[in-house]
Amino acid sequence: MEEVIKSLMTQISSPASHSRNKLTVVGAGQVGMACAFACLTQRVADEIALVDIFADKVQGETLDLQHGIAFMPRVKIFGGSDYSMTKDSKVCIISAGARQQVGESRLDLLAKNFEIFKKIIPEIVKYSPDVIILVVSNPVDILSYVTWKLSGLPHHRVIGSGTNLDTARFKQLISLKFGINIQSVDMWILGEHGDSSVPVYSSLRVGDVALAGNKTDFENLKIWEEIHKTVVRSAYEIIHLKGYTSWAIGLSCSDICKSIFHNTNDLHALSTLAKGLYDINDEVYISLPCVLGQNGITHVINLPLTENEKSALQETAKKMFKLQRDLRI
Amino acid sequence: MEEVIKSLMTQISSPASHSRNKLTVVGAGQVGMACAFACLTQRVADEIALVDIFADKVQGETLDLQHGIAFMPRVKIFGGSDYSMTKDSKVCIISAGARQQVGESRLDLLAKNFEIFKKIIPEIVKYSPDVIILVVSNPVDILSYVTWKLSGLPHHRVIGSGTNLDTARFKQLISLKFGINIQSVDMWILGEHGDSSVPVYSSLRVGDVALAGNKTDFENLKIWEEIHKTVVRSAYEIIHLKGYTSWAIGLSCSDICKSIFHNTNDLHALSTLAKGLYDINDEVYISLPCVLGQNGITHVINLPLTENEKSALQETAKKMFKLQRDLRI
Amino acid sequence: MEEVIKSLMTQISSPASHSRNKLTVVGAGQVGMACAFACLTQRVADEIALVDIFADKVQGETLDLQHGIAFMPRVKIFGGSDYSMTKDSKVCIISAGARQQVGESRLDLLAKNFEIFKKIIPEIVKYSPDVIILVVSNPVDILSYVTWKLSGLPHHRVIGSGTNLDTARFKQLISLKFGINIQSVDMWILGEHGDSSVPVYSSLRVGDVALAGNKTDFENLKIWEEIHKTVVRSAYEIIHLKGYTSWAIGLSCSDICKSIFHNTNDLHALSTLAKGLYDINDEVYISLPCVLGQNGITHVINLPLTENEKSALQETAKKMFKLQRDLRI
Amino acid sequence: MEEVIKSLMTQISSPASHSRNKLTVVGAGQVGMACAFACLTQRVADEIALVDIFADKVQGETLDLQHGIAFMPRVKIFGGSDYSMTKDSKVCIISAGARQQVGESRLDLLAKNFEIFKKIIPEIVKYSPDVIILVVSNPVDILSYVTWKLSGLPHHRVIGSGTNLDTARFKQLISLKFGINIQSVDMWILGEHGDSSVPVYSSLRVGDVALAGNKTDFENLKIWEEIHKTVVRSAYEIIHLKGYTSWAIGLSCSDICKSIFHNTNDLHALSTLAKGLYDINDEVYISLPCVLGQNGITHVINLPLTENEKSALQETAKKMFKLQRDLRI
Repeated sequence: MEEVIKSLMTQISSPASHSRNKLTVVGAGQVGMACAFACLTQRVADEIALVDIFADKVQGETLDLQHGIAFMPRVKIFGGSDYSMTKDSKVCIISAGARQQVGESRLDLLAKNFEIFKKIIPEIVKYSPDVIILVVSNPVDILSYVTWKLSGLPHHRVIGSGTNLDTARFKQLISLKFGINIQSVDMWILGEHGDSSVPVYSSLRVGDVALAGNKTDFENLKIWEEIHKTVVRSAYEIIHLKGYTSWAIGLSCSDICKSIFHNTNDLHALSTLAKGLYDINDEVYISLPCVLGQNGITHVINLPLTENEKSALQETAKKMFKLQRDLRI
Repeated sequence: MEEVIKSLMTQISSPASHSRNKLTVVGAGQVGMACAFACLTQRVADEIALVDIFADKVQGETLDLQHGIAFMPRVKIFGGSDYSMTKDSKVCIISAGARQQVGESRLDLLAKNFEIFKKIIPEIVKYSPDVIILVVSNPVDILSYVTWKLSGLPHHRVIGSGTNLDTARFKQLISLKFGINIQSVDMWILGEHGDSSVPVYSSLRVGDVALAGNKTDFENLKIWEEIHKTVVRSAYEIIHLKGYTSWAIGLSCSDICKSIFHNTNDLHALSTLAKGLYDINDEVYISLPCVLGQNGITHVINLPLTENEKSALQETAKKMFKLQRDLRI
Repeated sequence: MEEVIKSLMTQISSPASHSRNKLTVVGAGQVGMACAFACLTQRVADEIALVDIFADKVQGETLDLQHGIAFMPRVKIFGGSDYSMTKDSKVCIISAGARQQVGESRLDLLAKNFEIFKKIIPEIVKYSPDVIILVVSNPVDILSYVTWKLSGLPHHRVIGSGTNLDTARFKQLISLKFGINIQSVDMWILGEHGDSSVPVYSSLRVGDVALAGNKTDFENLKIWEEIHKTVVRSAYEIIHLKGYTSWAIGLSCSDICKSIFHNTNDLHALSTLAKGLYDINDEVYISLPCVLGQNGITHVINLPLTENEKSALQETAKKMFKLQRDLRI
Repeated sequence: MEEVIKSLMTQISSPASHSRNKLTVVGAGQVGMACAFACLTQRVADEIALVDIFADKVQGETLDLQHGIAFMPRVKIFGGSDYSMTKDSKVCIISAGARQQVGESRLDLLAKNFEIFKKIIPEIVKYSPDVIILVVSNPVDILSYVTWKLSGLPHHRVIGSGTNLDTARFKQLISLKFGINIQSVDMWILGEHGDSSVPVYSSLRVGDVALAGNKTDFENLKIWEEIHKTVVRSAYEIIHLKGYTSWAIGLSCSDICKSIFHNTNDLHALSTLAKGLYDINDEVYISLPCVLGQNGITHVINLPLTENEKSALQETAKKMFKLQRDLRI
């Protein structure tokens, strides 16, 4: 084979060891693979390294993706259990971790994933000291905080996918009801990803028209609260129906990665260090409206919240801080 | 809610009942979902209807995709078990069907899927009489033939994904070895999808240089035969490693759909009615190099095969014909 | 040549006479070509027919585009002076028309372009009775109205590019100042395209935070008024600097076409029949916030304007109506 | 304004000074602008610096592009006459230079452009020492050689757009005649860009079928020679019809840039240092089939040429060498 190659072409210089827009995905489960596939098909990254401790699984997924490069000819795909292949990644998505078992407390789960992250994070930082880490594993806010602590990276380079997806779900329901493109729906869901997320109804606009601005319009508010409940329920509903969620979280992460790789300064609801923002004094990670670029988070937007919204956000921060203390991170 | 909508906007005309570039995917399993997701993220179709008899599964997948439209704002997604939602699709991918069970003969499997297709195909044609059907379910060649018979459509509007993927896998291995973009690798794998596919080594070129043109160069040929064996093994390998194949077949189908939706006249190795081509006289479906556009297959390329390649192709056709006879289609 | 083709491939069915996503561009000047090139490179349309009365010019532009299809392999391009090639277009951009000459009154120019449109519009509608017409030629609002009258099409199928570009220019300046992605800047400029456009400061938001909401904050308002003046000046500035404007208007039209071809229900500031909306009673075309899909404009958003904004809009409508009367359309 | 920004958002870290995928285009004429616009709309680069000595022209073009970012929200655009804004570009397209005047010899033109390049090239290398330079100005082969000499860069980082466009034009004509997608047409035109380019008919394939392989088939060869003549004439034809060529060369350069930015290892016919390849012994730049990635040219393909093809290529090399000697580079 070597001879065939030599006779076919004359080498002029050494090929690049890896592409500039390189992404690592840790965890080749349904979420990790949806992230990888969304980033590849949407041409967000030019090269992907997939890492998983389950060697068979990650090799199977890698081969399956590689077989598709005839149809997305721009990309390179590698995979395995060895972190050396992640070298010089610009972004790393962490989707690894245990899932909650029956009878297991949330604290137990967190403790278990803490141990897993203790192995992953130093390896990532070792091979890519300038990486930006995007945590997807749940509970995403605490694990983002944990990752920040373990990585030694500045906090603007460690983010959690947070309520970016909760926000997208809310907007999707509104978009469907109004028959209007989702890009013309504005809304923020902040705080903790999941059940206790904080919907900022005062930011809800369709076609740039405020829909819940009148704070005394309680009747009206109920409509949107109902939609927020649907959003909270929907993750459970999908898990009940198909066993897990994957596509939307994959697309959400691909969108976040796009802002980093292509330095777009786009706004996302991301889990970030909230201390000193929105009158939060504890060192916790929760979702806030962030400007994201090549260097990570550059700014946090100061949304003018109602009193209710602000106190809900601060409650969340306190809850997270207590959890961290119990975890002894 | 109705009142909110009315006060927000004044209706001028009726929205379109569905998008022009509409795709139906029948079967919401791993393959069907990879097809749907690849078509959505690569903007091949503007609207997708997902159909599956398992109502929970298809509803879960539909919700999961819908939650992602904030990140691919151009598309519309519907799903369920009722075929009326497939109305006026331009293309329909069929990925439904039973998988081979232990101890079950291939003929038994075929007979079972024949029954399933008897229910699906008439429903598709009823709601979209001008559709082009792309069969992915295995064994793809016989099921494409079955679909043609059941649909009553002209044969250029019923195709099977065939060896489009086998060809892509072969090219990928070559591309990797030579460090050259896969678009500069030419090769055709024709005939039956899977174990007995026919590699056309005489068409193998890298950077437009023929690599196996010298028919007496047997030593050389062994290199490429080894790669073909790897291709044949690779589907089994992935199934062994991750349980199923999905990404590459999804991308292959997305690529085929792109040629139809966007009328590109691209070449693909597709399962098509081979009678009258390549000296094949039986009414069978096997993969040949086809020009594909908005109207379906418009031309088949007459590749100059070696004697060995030609007889291998004809053997395959005979084998398929015998199978069809045993099936009594 | 015919023989070579016949020996190479066997015809199976007739190729489609034209692609489904077909666009016509009338006028192969700088604006028309920027529209065509933006639509091609952004894959908005799959086929383009270029029409111009200057046969040499349109042939040169067509050849130049055609030579590029190796790098955008999905598209087909035709061009000439004969309208029969526009058959079955889904969208038609009109960029043809005379430019204002020194010493020529605006009414004279309008009268001249009215005569030109009398020749173009019936030809377009004859070959594509279901087309949506997008007028770009200036003065765009009156010419959109003229096109509606000449075409006999329902008014939701005749639109003008209007203040879609004025709005984009305002947002771009804000985006640059704040270092934030332009998609997080909300603002509407409505009314007449150009000097007397109506900026709706009450809709200005960055990161979903209102910047000019406080109606008594006159000091603040001056900042935005200054930016609006820059926007109004900028077209003149570019014409002074490079002789004409092209890229931004081309991208604006490509964006509008995308909403139609791909049925996105996106919002745009488009010139539309304003009668009955925003308390306007005359039959005039001016820009309002429109929901646009495959069928044309489906809804107009009822933005809550300030008194000043509303009266400025109504003034514009009256001015346009007077102009139409003088023109005797 | 500063106050508004401060109250709106809290800074967390410094934004990146420039995007990673940064492109410089020197020369804001029709060719340079078509290159820039094609790269922007096809999302090849994330940031573009436009440089031209004509301050008005480049400012006008920059403003016009910037006004379009609402419709291509991922990019950043800067322009002016100061090279400091090109800092840390990964690729630089040079489209600057004088055009041939009536009565001016080719050598005079070359001498004039040599002087212009003496000013440009050191500035580019000063601000972006790791840049890859893509020369487009004509005569492209000599000017690529000149750029290599002036830059001090290794030769795999200095390339000319060469016959990439000639090849694309030939393929386009074949694609049109056969009604087949251009990606299924293989052909190389090598040597000097323009009149004396060398068509490698032995590489001509449609759907992977050789069309001119039989060397005794002289009748057949005439068909393709006629098409090559059309290709050579077509640049003159377009200049006659519209005054200049722009779109196709812009797309050709965008395609070349894509291979560099996204490290694709794609093949292109590029002007490169030919010494030691194809039995050429002189230090000249002519087009050969090159593998292009993030580091520049990594390999040259050894196409098996006929004797006629090989001697035509060598004649070209000698002609270029003589020209260089007369120029005293």
